[in-house]
Amino acid sequence: MLEQLKKEVYEANMLLPKHHLITFTWGNVSGIDRESGLFVIKPSGVEYDELRPEDMVVVDLKGNKVEGEYNPSSDTATHMVLYNRFPGISGVVHTHSPWATSWAQAGRAVPCYGTTHADYIYGEIPCVRNLTKEEIEEAYELNTGVLIADDFDANHRDPIATPAVLCKNHGVFTWGTSAYDAVHNAVVAEECAKMAAWCEMINPDVKPAPQELQDKHYYRKHGANAYYGQTKK
Amino acid sequence: MLEQLKKEVYEANMLLPKHHLITFTWGNVSGIDRESGLFVIKPSGVEYDELRPEDMVVVDLKGNKVEGEYNPSSDTATHMVLYNRFPGISGVVHTHSPWATSWAQAGRAVPCYGTTHADYIYGEIPCVRNLTKEEIEEAYELNTGVLIADDFDANHRDPIATPAVLCKNHGVFTWGTSAYDAVHNAVVAEECAKMAAWCEMINPDVKPAPQELQDKHYYRKHGANAYYGQTKK
Amino acid sequence: MLEQLKKEVYEANMLLPKHHLITFTWGNVSGIDRESGLFVIKPSGVEYDELRPEDMVVVDLKGNKVEGEYNPSSDTATHMVLYNRFPGISGVVHTHSPWATSWAQAGRAVPCYGTTHADYIYGEIPCVRNLTKEEIEEAYELNTGVLIADDFDANHRDPIATPAVLCKNHGVFTWGTSAYDAVHNAVVAEECAKMAAWCEMINPDVKPAPQELQDKHYYRKHGANAYYGQTKK
Amino acid sequence: MLEQLKKEVYEANMLLPKHHLITFTWGNVSGIDRESGLFVIKPSGVEYDELRPEDMVVVDLKGNKVEGEYNPSSDTATHMVLYNRFPGISGVVHTHSPWATSWAQAGRAVPCYGTTHADYIYGEIPCVRNLTKEEIEEAYELNTGVLIADDFDANHRDPIATPAVLCKNHGVFTWGTSAYDAVHNAVVAEECAKMAAWCEMINPDVKPAPQELQDKHYYRKHGANAYYGQTKK
Repeated sequence: MLEQLKKEVYEANMLLPKHHLITFTWGNVSGIDRESGLFVIKPSGVEYDELRPEDMVVVDLKGNKVEGEYNPSSDTATHMVLYNRFPGISGVVHTHSPWATSWAQAGRAVPCYGTTHADYIYGEIPCVRNLTKEEIEEAYELNTGVLIADDFDANHRDPIATPAVLCKNHGVFTWGTSAYDAVHNAVVAEECAKMAAWCEMINPDVKPAPQELQDKHYYRKHGANAYYGQTKK
Repeated sequence: MLEQLKKEVYEANMLLPKHHLITFTWGNVSGIDRESGLFVIKPSGVEYDELRPEDMVVVDLKGNKVEGEYNPSSDTATHMVLYNRFPGISGVVHTHSPWATSWAQAGRAVPCYGTTHADYIYGEIPCVRNLTKEEIEEAYELNTGVLIADDFDANHRDPIATPAVLCKNHGVFTWGTSAYDAVHNAVVAEECAKMAAWCEMINPDVKPAPQELQDKHYYRKHGANAYYGQTKK
Repeated sequence: MLEQLKKEVYEANMLLPKHHLITFTWGNVSGIDRESGLFVIKPSGVEYDELRPEDMVVVDLKGNKVEGEYNPSSDTATHMVLYNRFPGISGVVHTHSPWATSWAQAGRAVPCYGTTHADYIYGEIPCVRNLTKEEIEEAYELNTGVLIADDFDANHRDPIATPAVLCKNHGVFTWGTSAYDAVHNAVVAEECAKMAAWCEMINPDVKPAPQELQDKHYYRKHGANAYYGQTKK
Repeated sequence: MLEQLKKEVYEANMLLPKHHLITFTWGNVSGIDRESGLFVIKPSGVEYDELRPEDMVVVDLKGNKVEGEYNPSSDTATHMVLYNRFPGISGVVHTHSPWATSWAQAGRAVPCYGTTHADYIYGEIPCVRNLTKEEIEEAYELNTGVLIADDFDANHRDPIATPAVLCKNHGVFTWGTSAYDAVHNAVVAEECAKMAAWCEMINPDVKPAPQELQDKHYYRKHGANAYYGQTKK
């Protein structure tokens, strides 16, 4: 079942080592078929060298495994919550990519210091708090998803415009319109996290980019008046 | 038309990922045929893996597309202004290469701390101010070029001797005597931006290299008394 | 003798350059056959390009060479002591991997700032003191092992849960349940050392990850209640 | 003439890009035949991709070109002085490798913070002052060599034990018992410069490694009592 989606999710997973976002098995990508309400995710702890499209695991939106030889990723419940709470997304990525993770460990949101960031991510990349001991013990991975979605709700963040979040002392989740798009945003988040750190090293008093410049770049690529690329040629 | 120039511009574009100056499609190279007053530029948002010489777009010095299946780069107007205002140049590059962009985000010019920099770029790599809200709304890409050229005029900078500029909170533009030479200067700018940041980390009180050393290295490679390389053997 | 183990130790050694943990010959891996009490180790100063499985040297737990054409690694006595004092381990790695070594040179333990670290290493990566002039002169490599093991005893560290240590002004030793597992831990230690440095650069006031989060991640992968990976599918 | 040496020097030059020590043509290696008093050096400004063994240039110890189609490296006079003043060396390398150059730009010697450094370089990597305007104008490259050699004399440094030097605001020179050995030392210098910078970032109050540890590592690999490697098996 869902052979085409399995292939896409497999290929998106294979992009993680290609873009130097992961070491060993420290990441996972999923993609959802919104019609059937089923998502496909990487199996847990399987080496990337050995991964095959048919090893992908099919899970429903309650977190039940529907098909697959292997256990799904240990982070499956987080993906599930994000698909339930963010109906506009169709792919989710989790990595410990080193610059984004360093910001997460530092407990800081990544400010928008330039157009590289504004081209793809509207506003800062937020950093959500630690789960409490009780939340961890109750349901760690599920509550990670709940925390992210609640934070976006409470701060009126649009998950489509801000497709990335840091989890304090942990790593980064990104999402997008497909598994591939979610990986693209994971690369963007890592690149922006790297340049934001370097930028603060070069000028400790740096301020975020002017709002009008952020808006210009974001809307040059997104929305009704976008003119970047070939879609409107 | 301009088949040879298209090939050169195509090859110069392909050097950007080779030299790790770009991620995805975040850069563009153009080259001009001064005789006809036409320049050739990368199409907007096309993946580097799929790019072909015949996909390059031909544009005139008023910014009109003369030939090409695709939309030209969204930064075409900036290239156009630079060709008009700097008649000695024949190639332009724009990237978000990470070290140069970090200095741009930091809003600082890159000081000339050593001979690696002085060998190719005379004096600091300047950083121009943000465009105003009005300038952005009126004509963002065109005004970016105007801002750069006006800054060079106002500060009596020779664009041939200083073939690189940072745009605050954005990225870097370089140029040269050909599309290839402009890419060469983009690599130099990135390398010098990297070493300048490291150098300040190692010695926060560092001063620019002595002027006589900068002059020695620059004029060892440029001008009537140059003796580097094989041209005068 | 021990042909299978020689092959494993050879392959584990070849992973060091693959994971960018070493320059030239600056590292060594060994693995032990607990039944016979013999361990197999890389020869001293042989180029990785020229290394072959049959070049591995067999040594007993008193440090005597039992078989092999070459001298064993100059660090053999350190490996020997670790095998004697830590009976639960079956592989040892020594490298000068750059981030771990920078922490060792700085004389600081690597704090556990996040789950990447907690997934594999329980608590900080400790940094043992310099050997005294007398300890160096008496038996440098042997006393390095003694210092490490004494430090783990004195601080009640479990070498299975904390499979890595820094030696001040020197480098890093890691170990594991096999030569391969020891290399895995060497990669983890380097990655965590890197991200800990970046994290302190981004937030100089950063604190270690909450203990309950460290515990969650460590025990998600280790012990009776582990649920990461495929072992319990 | 000197076909074997040309091949060795060619191969040593090709190691510079392999070890990421150079960008474009920013480096050069030479090797000397002490019997004839002739040295072989890379031609100036020739791309590494196009370099061939037969392109190497033969120069005598007064700096006269003896054989070769091309101009020798513009730094030839520096190499010449080093061969004359340091009779124990048989290979010289000059690069702008980024970490060593960042220390040179910072105007600081690289302290010996650990055994990676002490294994190959005895004591700090010194940084010589800028040449004066008069010294630059008189004979820049020759006076660079004189400055280095005079500094080693004045400070009683043994060039065999300390085979590397930084030139302020410029780059790094290393040397050794052969062209290959000089490249090896260039890699060591770059690696140590990198780790020294990281180490100071992790602990701004770091002190050099204890002298007895430096001595132990240096003499473990050098001199009558060396026991590293296979020479004494």
